[in-house]
Amino acid sequence: MAQTWGNFLFSLLDYKTEKFVIAKNKKVGVLFRLFQLGVIGYLIGWVFLWKKGYQETEEVIQSSVITKLKGVDFTNSSQSGLQLWGAEDYVIPPQGDRVFFIVTNYVVTPNQKLGYCPEVRDRLLFYFVIPNTNYATKNMRHLLERTGRCINDTGTCEIHAWCPVEHGQTPSEPMLAKAENFTIYVKNFIKFPKFAFSKSNVLPTTNSTYLKMCRYDKDHHPYCPIFLVGDVINWTGYSFQDLATKGGSIGVGIEWNCDLDKDESQCNPEYSFTRLDSVKNSQNSAISGYNFRFARYYNDVAGQTYRNLFKVYGIRFDILVNGKAGRFSIIPTVISIGSGLALMGAGVFVCDMILLYMMSKSSFYRETKFETVRVSLQTLIPAAPQTFM
Amino acid sequence: MAQTWGNFLFSLLDYKTEKFVIAKNKKVGVLFRLFQLGVIGYLIGWVFLWKKGYQETEEVIQSSVITKLKGVDFTNSSQSGLQLWGAEDYVIPPQGDRVFFIVTNYVVTPNQKLGYCPEVRDRLLFYFVIPNTNYATKNMRHLLERTGRCINDTGTCEIHAWCPVEHGQTPSEPMLAKAENFTIYVKNFIKFPKFAFSKSNVLPTTNSTYLKMCRYDKDHHPYCPIFLVGDVINWTGYSFQDLATKGGSIGVGIEWNCDLDKDESQCNPEYSFTRLDSVKNSQNSAISGYNFRFARYYNDVAGQTYRNLFKVYGIRFDILVNGKAGRFSIIPTVISIGSGLALMGAGVFVCDMILLYMMSKSSFYRETKFETVRVSLQTLIPAAPQTFM
Amino acid sequence: MAQTWGNFLFSLLDYKTEKFVIAKNKKVGVLFRLFQLGVIGYLIGWVFLWKKGYQETEEVIQSSVITKLKGVDFTNSSQSGLQLWGAEDYVIPPQGDRVFFIVTNYVVTPNQKLGYCPEVRDRLLFYFVIPNTNYATKNMRHLLERTGRCINDTGTCEIHAWCPVEHGQTPSEPMLAKAENFTIYVKNFIKFPKFAFSKSNVLPTTNSTYLKMCRYDKDHHPYCPIFLVGDVINWTGYSFQDLATKGGSIGVGIEWNCDLDKDESQCNPEYSFTRLDSVKNSQNSAISGYNFRFARYYNDVAGQTYRNLFKVYGIRFDILVNGKAGRFSIIPTVISIGSGLALMGAGVFVCDMILLYMMSKSSFYRETKFETVRVSLQTLIPAAPQTFM
Repeated sequence: MAQTWGNFLFSLLDYKTEKFVIAKNKKVGVLFRLFQLGVIGYLIGWVFLWKKGYQETEEVIQSSVITKLKGVDFTNSSQSGLQLWGAEDYVIPPQGDRVFFIVTNYVVTPNQKLGYCPEVRDRLLFYFVIPNTNYATKNMRHLLERTGRCINDTGTCEIHAWCPVEHGQTPSEPMLAKAENFTIYVKNFIKFPKFAFSKSNVLPTTNSTYLKMCRYDKDHHPYCPIFLVGDVINWTGYSFQDLATKGGSIGVGIEWNCDLDKDESQCNPEYSFTRLDSVKNSQNSAISGYNFRFARYYNDVAGQTYRNLFKVYGIRFDILVNGKAGRFSIIPTVISIGSGLALMGAGVFVCDMILLYMMSKSSFYRETKFETVRVSLQTLIPAAPQTFM
Repeated sequence: MAQTWGNFLFSLLDYKTEKFVIAKNKKVGVLFRLFQLGVIGYLIGWVFLWKKGYQETEEVIQSSVITKLKGVDFTNSSQSGLQLWGAEDYVIPPQGDRVFFIVTNYVVTPNQKLGYCPEVRDRLLFYFVIPNTNYATKNMRHLLERTGRCINDTGTCEIHAWCPVEHGQTPSEPMLAKAENFTIYVKNFIKFPKFAFSKSNVLPTTNSTYLKMCRYDKDHHPYCPIFLVGDVINWTGYSFQDLATKGGSIGVGIEWNCDLDKDESQCNPEYSFTRLDSVKNSQNSAISGYNFRFARYYNDVAGQTYRNLFKVYGIRFDILVNGKAGRFSIIPTVISIGSGLALMGAGVFVCDMILLYMMSKSSFYRETKFETVRVSLQTLIPAAPQTFM
Repeated sequence: MAQTWGNFLFSLLDYKTEKFVIAKNKKVGVLFRLFQLGVIGYLIGWVFLWKKGYQETEEVIQSSVITKLKGVDFTNSSQSGLQLWGAEDYVIPPQGDRVFFIVTNYVVTPNQKLGYCPEVRDRLLFYFVIPNTNYATKNMRHLLERTGRCINDTGTCEIHAWCPVEHGQTPSEPMLAKAENFTIYVKNFIKFPKFAFSKSNVLPTTNSTYLKMCRYDKDHHPYCPIFLVGDVINWTGYSFQDLATKGGSIGVGIEWNCDLDKDESQCNPEYSFTRLDSVKNSQNSAISGYNFRFARYYNDVAGQTYRNLFKVYGIRFDILVNGKAGRFSIIPTVISIGSGLALMGAGVFVCDMILLYMMSKSSFYRETKFETVRVSLQTLIPAAPQTFM
């Protein structure tokens, strides 16, 4: 018995190979070889060389963005006089976030005090006492009468609000015309957590002299992290004038496409610029433009609060970072090769079908390919134990 | 010799097919066919129809969010008198970010000046001179004595702080009760960089009239991008009253689930609403609520600085965008099919084991399946070159 | 005819098994068994146990971060006198965002008014009238003469600016030295949308007493969400003094690595700390440091605007959340197993090549493995229909 088991284990080390039938059929043979070539070509050409199917990829990127703007502009309006706008004023918020806004146009309503004043009829009253009155115009008069007085002969009502009321006429030209020349310095630190790889868009080869002089340009300075506002807008296909008057939103894409099998220095950012509140479709004009209001509060000598209300139009920049990194890994390699090989099985199946059922001599092939087990007396004589696979 | 090579290459085009043994065993046969059906059903039903395994997917979404709030409310308190709250006041920050905060309740401590004043005993002193005193209460008196004077009979100490000190009694009712009726307009621009596909949640079919009238509603206006604050809170399962008094944090999810093999118009956002600082677990009450302080600084006539300190409670909205896009690609298709086919090999293995070792006639099957190569004189006669595979 | 089809369908249920040739060649046999063991070891050890290849993974995490700082510091400067800094002052923005900035050092230029004043020669004039003068120094004089007067004997020019001009001498010691002891409370809510799994870094087992006392520490309090600023800086490998004087940027990573096949309580955050504006490479010193300017505006009794300009240096914290969740899923399991099995086919191919072409008895093996179909008269006698596969 022990010997039988020994024989069995020993026979496990015999190599078993599939028995093949050679069908001297060149048509099917050529077809199958072509199919094999196709699979091999797909695997090597498409999967490995083009799609880098031997790499484990990471598409999640950890990113930290710091921005800094430079440039100054003067505005001169009858209401607020000569004004100097530095980065501390026109960048909102000022601390250099990933998303920031540059004031290019504004309406200021100075010295507003809480009180009663006549409403302005030529614009929606969303700004005043009644919440959402712009959506409830037919009930508006009724609501107003609860808070103010209506002078029936002129049709205007008195409302309780910050007076005087904002007149709402946006200048037709951007007040900060020089905003075009402001510069944006973008620092982006990225990390691919899976590969513990991190890099900055300010490349190690960049020195501070270059950083003071350079301006990003796709062709000549592709790795300069300093952008001219006017250029960025032009690259989106719009003009500064378009965006600056009524405001707009621009996405600055930073794409990191890194092959970590190559040297680190090959992993560099690529910039792209798109307008986000695009108006290509005229029906969508409702979503273009960008403005908001903020107020600066003061107290007068008597301690009463008054404020300057700013309605600012401008360009919102959204630095959008995305990236992909790939590095050789055994599992995707095995999956790519394995599934390609398995696909050859499908080719065998098709070629077999053609050979066995669509050729003139199919019945001969069938007979040779398939062998029926017939239990005869002879085979009942015990044989040496056989193993499989 | 040249002819031999020619023969060899020519024989490469012969089709070679595996030789099969037909075991007339219906049990194993049925088992194998069932297994085959299972694999085919899994491939077609689960992998292809349900999971869309023929698609390359992208789960990384580039997203830019702009928000705009509308609505006004009055507050009337003994301390600060009648106050008008417009979006420029109750939205923090005012510029329309992805994450924003709506003031719904507040405590104002007006006219604070730097000086010495008695501490307030009924609350933690984290606000005053000694950093982290709230975590070091037993050493507090000692530290206070270094900076102020303690009046031993009352037990209060004088501290150097902004005086008068904030009393810290939060109103038990939200001061801005009408915040429920404020509207939030959410503009979301997304892009799937891998597929160069971009879209906005303000659909191309949306016109500006609809945008002025509509309110989001899952059933009737699923693509209206304007939300009523009160509705959003109700959809999270909490009441406005709950959140507005002590503050809270709400996540507004926008999900883009796009099948790019279909038409672009099928790729639409889906909204969901959850409370993030959830208090379902009573032990976790420490993490619910939301408030912070900010100050408005003034100078008096003498040039001395004083400030109004606001402790604001309110609702923080976090617009969370996620998405997935899929498009037909050859590689995942091959991997899905290939791995399914390869799995059939496992079925062959199991069925072979059953046939060869667990059937009554196993030894016959074994003998027919396996053929031993025996080197005989006859086979030493040179044969035509044979190829394999 | 009906019977023929019946026979055919019936024969479909016959089990067909490949015919194997046993080559009693221990060398190739051992090689093949070793290869099989290798593939099985790879599948079980690497793919399943180590890489959890049976899991569907989600690497996209939805995250919402709320931060809250505590701590107070005094500063005493000749210009602005004694100042008290609370969280409402030193945290910018104050509302508790994912990205926030702590003021640690500052230069204040109080009581600036718009007017004419002499320029400051010892620093770049990027701050004044001419946009981008720092990049156009050779044209500067020319531009200045358009807006001010130049006093030729001293070489200074008069410029139109906020006067007095910022002197630009940063204190060499951080003004807010106690910022080291400020605490940061980080609340992070995450969600894996694919698995509808959500969790907070404030664990359900954390009670509010613990939250008041604990400080994060990798070894003793790994799940305490409260961080000491000084500790965080030390863990990045830099000293508080380094960062606080000229500013810096710190990334606080929160990593969620969740195996959702295990209990929810096993899915916990891991914190990591890195300096983002790293200065390891001396050439890159241009990107280190962090500062920005903001202004507080006042009106004097006459209604004229003046401002206090703050240039603040400090530490920017960026809470970077990433994560990965995995849960058992049938598709990746099938792909992992299937591709591994398919790879065995490659082993068969290699072993066959060795056996058939590199062994001394290769020709015998070839002859037994391959059987040529020869069409003889005998096989023309119609046989029972055969099926395949």
